[in-house]
Amino acid sequence: MLDLTQDVRTLTAAIVDIESVSGDERALAEAVEQALAVLPYLKVDRSGETLVARTELGRAERVLIAGHLDTVPVAGNLPSRVEGDLLFGCGTSDMKAGVAVALKLAATVPAPNRDVTYVFYDCEEIEAERNGLTRVAREHPEWLAADFAVLMEPTDGVIEGGCQGTLRAEITVAGKRAHSARSWLGVNAIHGIEPVLARLNAYEARQPVVDGLAYHEGLNAVGVRGGVAGNVIPDECVVTVNYRFAPDLSIEQAQAHVREVFDGFEVRFTDGAPAARPGLTHPVAAAFTAAVGGTPRAKLGWTDVARFSTLGVPAVNYGPGDPNLAHQQGEYVSLTKIVESERALLDWLTK
Amino acid sequence: MLDLTQDVRTLTAAIVDIESVSGDERALAEAVEQALAVLPYLKVDRSGETLVARTELGRAERVLIAGHLDTVPVAGNLPSRVEGDLLFGCGTSDMKAGVAVALKLAATVPAPNRDVTYVFYDCEEIEAERNGLTRVAREHPEWLAADFAVLMEPTDGVIEGGCQGTLRAEITVAGKRAHSARSWLGVNAIHGIEPVLARLNAYEARQPVVDGLAYHEGLNAVGVRGGVAGNVIPDECVVTVNYRFAPDLSIEQAQAHVREVFDGFEVRFTDGAPAARPGLTHPVAAAFTAAVGGTPRAKLGWTDVARFSTLGVPAVNYGPGDPNLAHQQGEYVSLTKIVESERALLDWLTK
Repeated sequence: MLDLTQDVRTLTAAIVDIESVSGDERALAEAVEQALAVLPYLKVDRSGETLVARTELGRAERVLIAGHLDTVPVAGNLPSRVEGDLLFGCGTSDMKAGVAVALKLAATVPAPNRDVTYVFYDCEEIEAERNGLTRVAREHPEWLAADFAVLMEPTDGVIEGGCQGTLRAEITVAGKRAHSARSWLGVNAIHGIEPVLARLNAYEARQPVVDGLAYHEGLNAVGVRGGVAGNVIPDECVVTVNYRFAPDLSIEQAQAHVREVFDGFEVRFTDGAPAARPGLTHPVAAAFTAAVGGTPRAKLGWTDVARFSTLGVPAVNYGPGDPNLAHQQGEYVSLTKIVESERALLDWLTK
Repeated sequence: MLDLTQDVRTLTAAIVDIESVSGDERALAEAVEQALAVLPYLKVDRSGETLVARTELGRAERVLIAGHLDTVPVAGNLPSRVEGDLLFGCGTSDMKAGVAVALKLAATVPAPNRDVTYVFYDCEEIEAERNGLTRVAREHPEWLAADFAVLMEPTDGVIEGGCQGTLRAEITVAGKRAHSARSWLGVNAIHGIEPVLARLNAYEARQPVVDGLAYHEGLNAVGVRGGVAGNVIPDECVVTVNYRFAPDLSIEQAQAHVREVFDGFEVRFTDGAPAARPGLTHPVAAAFTAAVGGTPRAKLGWTDVARFSTLGVPAVNYGPGDPNLAHQQGEYVSLTKIVESERALLDWLTK
């Protein structure tokens, strides 16, 4: 069982040392559940390997603090080890340091100034369908009700507001097959994508300011395929594009934009995930930004904050880990930053 | 054993009915060898499943008549069957009708007006390295010495002179990987092929007249590949182009042309086969064209005539089959055209 009375730094190491690669989080989920179960002021629910623990004090506001329990596959980087101020090991930065901070808050703040919902979930590092937050949002959306959410993704201790959305589309150009020795009898579909690439090269990405944060969009080819055989004029060529869009657009608006850019071509959307607004304009966020300090910035990559946004809960990314180290063999976290993060959130929930 | 005294039409059917898919020609090769062995005026050599039979009369000229024994895979189209003037079955057109004509000539013309070399070879329908003609040209080039060669590929009874050459090259554009959420940190290699496609679209193919025949070149993309993952700016994109070139260019000149077209890009040649001049300017060809009649035309696709050309032997394609039926399940040959072809070659070798 996890001892939540220990220092947040040693607690982080203890959590890191319980292996929890995506799909194999049970041992850690059980340890977390047992540690939370002894805290009488928390109501604990469980769905699979996801735990949701709530204070029920009837406060005017409810905030949600979430962290995922899983990690990418271990790469010879367990057990954890300390070198100076750094704790090395799989999941240290992404995001067991954040999980440790949340557990410390749960254990040490029985009567927070706002009701708190702690969420510890599984399968964040793999396909969305297995993501514990996806499942809980579908089966128990009331567990996630809140006025504001903090997702403890590694952000180097800086608030990163919202996230950009993402969608992928296939632009298909048709042609007509022919033997390449008599190419004039065919229509070359690969040659036909020239205007698609010309539009991508001429594209000027927006850099809109949304709720005070500067985003930066991008529309890019991420794949191209065409060709039947070395002696055949190809009858189809497909360019896959990825549009990363700022949170002032819904996914439907983003799709309409892509259709417009490739007007005259066959466009088929293959997947997509909505953006999330930064949420920093919400009154409850003011106290949070004051407690954390620093200058919030826009989150450009997609994260689970968008799932909260979809539920109507403004959400930000904030965690002690370094985002550049996520998924790397040499992953580590600064012990000082873990302590700073714990202190900032304590201030937020108690002052 | 094949009875070479029977009519060329029934002989064709008999040859078609001995299955000989590429790599499995032994039964047919043995039957052909036995039929040739009883003809005392022929010297017969064998290499694998390839047979070379020659008259040795000391004539002023030597001509070569070649046909491949193999077929593409049988597609429920054996045994052969006759419907009116048409003989249906695998290999009827490509090119057992031609093989039958050559065998009839071998059996009925003991003292031709020019020395004749008959070549029956294996593995034409598959990779060049297994082609019997490739092997004999390497191991016994003297067997193929001649002043002029006729390859009995299906041409609908019309002389098709020489063949265009072919080469393939990969045009590679490099970029720099980045996460697609921060695409401006990378360089998109797929976007980078736009000028490659622009040059292909602007390309004007030559239609040169060589030795009196009109050729028609082509430079085309036959493949394109690029893309790492749906969220990564790709760092490489490769366009595979196929250049079909007329026989006034050597393969080296053709490569130089492709390098020039894609000047500034990385060009890597992956394979190629030289063109063959039509050979119709050679004096020995005059008697052949007179015997066959009709208006010779240029061969645009690549055929084994180029192998003769490489050995310094001018060569043409000429056979009774219909080239449009080659490799099709419903393949057939006109019985009348087989007889016409036999008669034309008999005239050529006896008058």
